[in-house]
Amino acid sequence: MPSQPARVIMYTGAITGATGKVGHFNFAFPPDSMPLESGEQLGPISIAFETYGELNAAKSNAILVCHGFSGDSHAAGYKEGEKGAGWWDGMIGPGRAFDTDKYYIISSNCIGSCVGSTGPASINPINGKPYGLDFPLITIRDMVEAQRHLIDALGIGKLLTVAGGSMGGMQALQWLAAYPARVRSVIPIATAAKHSPQQIAFNEVERQAIMADPVWNNGAYYGGALPESGLGLARAIGHITFMSDKSMDAKFGRDLKSDKEPFKFTPEFQVEGYLRYRGNEFVKRFDANSYLYLTKAMDFFDLARDKPLHEVFRGSGARVLLVSYTSDWLYPSYHSQAIARAMKAAGVDVTYIEVESDYGHDAFLVEFAELTRLIKPFLEKSIKNAADAH
Amino acid sequence: MPSQPARVIMYTGAITGATGKVGHFNFAFPPDSMPLESGEQLGPISIAFETYGELNAAKSNAILVCHGFSGDSHAAGYKEGEKGAGWWDGMIGPGRAFDTDKYYIISSNCIGSCVGSTGPASINPINGKPYGLDFPLITIRDMVEAQRHLIDALGIGKLLTVAGGSMGGMQALQWLAAYPARVRSVIPIATAAKHSPQQIAFNEVERQAIMADPVWNNGAYYGGALPESGLGLARAIGHITFMSDKSMDAKFGRDLKSDKEPFKFTPEFQVEGYLRYRGNEFVKRFDANSYLYLTKAMDFFDLARDKPLHEVFRGSGARVLLVSYTSDWLYPSYHSQAIARAMKAAGVDVTYIEVESDYGHDAFLVEFAELTRLIKPFLEKSIKNAADAH
Repeated sequence: MPSQPARVIMYTGAITGATGKVGHFNFAFPPDSMPLESGEQLGPISIAFETYGELNAAKSNAILVCHGFSGDSHAAGYKEGEKGAGWWDGMIGPGRAFDTDKYYIISSNCIGSCVGSTGPASINPINGKPYGLDFPLITIRDMVEAQRHLIDALGIGKLLTVAGGSMGGMQALQWLAAYPARVRSVIPIATAAKHSPQQIAFNEVERQAIMADPVWNNGAYYGGALPESGLGLARAIGHITFMSDKSMDAKFGRDLKSDKEPFKFTPEFQVEGYLRYRGNEFVKRFDANSYLYLTKAMDFFDLARDKPLHEVFRGSGARVLLVSYTSDWLYPSYHSQAIARAMKAAGVDVTYIEVESDYGHDAFLVEFAELTRLIKPFLEKSIKNAADAH
Repeated sequence: MPSQPARVIMYTGAITGATGKVGHFNFAFPPDSMPLESGEQLGPISIAFETYGELNAAKSNAILVCHGFSGDSHAAGYKEGEKGAGWWDGMIGPGRAFDTDKYYIISSNCIGSCVGSTGPASINPINGKPYGLDFPLITIRDMVEAQRHLIDALGIGKLLTVAGGSMGGMQALQWLAAYPARVRSVIPIATAAKHSPQQIAFNEVERQAIMADPVWNNGAYYGGALPESGLGLARAIGHITFMSDKSMDAKFGRDLKSDKEPFKFTPEFQVEGYLRYRGNEFVKRFDANSYLYLTKAMDFFDLARDKPLHEVFRGSGARVLLVSYTSDWLYPSYHSQAIARAMKAAGVDVTYIEVESDYGHDAFLVEFAELTRLIKPFLEKSIKNAADAH
């Protein structure tokens, strides 16, 4: 891919907490544009990212962590002035799976998002207004391409691993497929090599929920009221798919809300109140158009397209740790099994583990013990391989 | 329950087709009101129903068939002037599972619905306007109570069986629990004795989709534009839950629509176009407020409440055929297994069969061969028992 090398890496604030040595950076491409998979151009581009730990002299201990579609670059520790720990704080820190005493972890927000990186809420240089639906279609390949520029700018030749769950797992797979020589290993978790019709269907009804909100106004709502009703509903639908039948039952049962109002289709069961609450919380932090673009990127993701999947992986020397969860019905294990089979057929050194969990798709965000047990020795072998290669 | 016996049974048209001997009736209660489980009153009440076959002299061959929440009384054959066969036409007719040469089949529309029976679109006698949200909360018990009046009016003491899938299966269970002496057997299919949080959650986001449509106008939309956008979206979400991951994959794959428009979040994948089409078709025939009331009735259904489930079934002499489907993830088999265990504990003569199917919850509406194989001998034994009892 052409486009000039990145010129600006801007430190914007510290991150403290269990991890100790962390910093938050804001990264900007030069003002020229990046070619997209669609054939369109996007630029200028900025990517928000955080780093934890220290890059070693050989630059052999760098790990890229990719978030799920509604995530951000804040994966660990605490940002100045903010209360919430990063979304993978249980996985990243001293002595944790991604051990900040040993590794240099980079957590990058993807393009198309709304949390520091260029997306539909960014200013369109053509008219000085937010893009809205003039933002071009972006794909998982485009996200990885932007990340590759970031990794170049950081002077890192080969990543020790690329790890991520859900849409983050797609990016890990895309890294392996597009840049096999730039990754020593990848850890795709709770993901798929292509979306099934059911996965597309859920994303589609969530998009419809947003687009049915009159406030959405064909994506041109910036500067005015936000399509909170539609976005909240989209998120509520999503939440059902992230949890398992069993985890919902354990969390809510058929308990009624304590502050239940008289019957008129207000929330009565606790699960109803929870879904509305989660929807309402989400609209404060996420952009509705980003929801549309990022779900579309997942739906269009198809690593192999018209080829057999194993051809995508042929010749790759990277090691792979592939994880799925027994109760994840949004990304059922058969998706990971198909990836594992294709990797085996391509001679890739892949370990596939189906982890027993009741937490559904959310498992990769809450079940840290087993994931840590799997990732620690996997990374130790990878870093040993890296040392041997020197 | 009090309330006067039904006075009016009005024949409104013929039904022809494979079944031959069928007629469509409209049934009305007297203008006084029926007490509801909520403590409120509802009246006057009408119930639309169809019958197929002939009631025998002993009135021992009557079968009540109960539809799913979006169904209607048109279960078999063809109505005058209409093209569509009834929703269980493959199950009802000469030589079919519900054999019209042997049995008298009654298919009743439930109250709360919008297809001939009293529901939120009916006229509220208090002000002469459609009820809208002034319609009282109705429950599965209320539906069965209204059906019981209908069965009384038809002069039938004991039903040979009550059969139904999904919400129809809840009614079959409620008949067994409320009127064990009035049913010789019941056939609950793809159903549950109480809704799980996941089932409530899906119904809730579907209700939210309707209520978020500004045209819904707090339920007071009659006589004006209908909340088609919200209702269509609710139905689209529902359709995902009715199908299985596998059946969606077989039907759509990742095929793109042939008339796909340029990228701007219009439907691109066939599955997206299908969901919008099904949503759009549905709004022509169903009332949005009925969708709210009937899904709420399902969510509130809890056959045992604070008792152990087996106590509900204790002392029942009725035989039970209980069916669930392997790929039905909306009403997973564990629901039926819990019912079967409770029935066994209560000494009920229950046969539980988990049928292998890829069709998900829709299976009871499309997989007729196996269901017919199960139901035929079950009914033959029931009718033999009925004859022996005489």
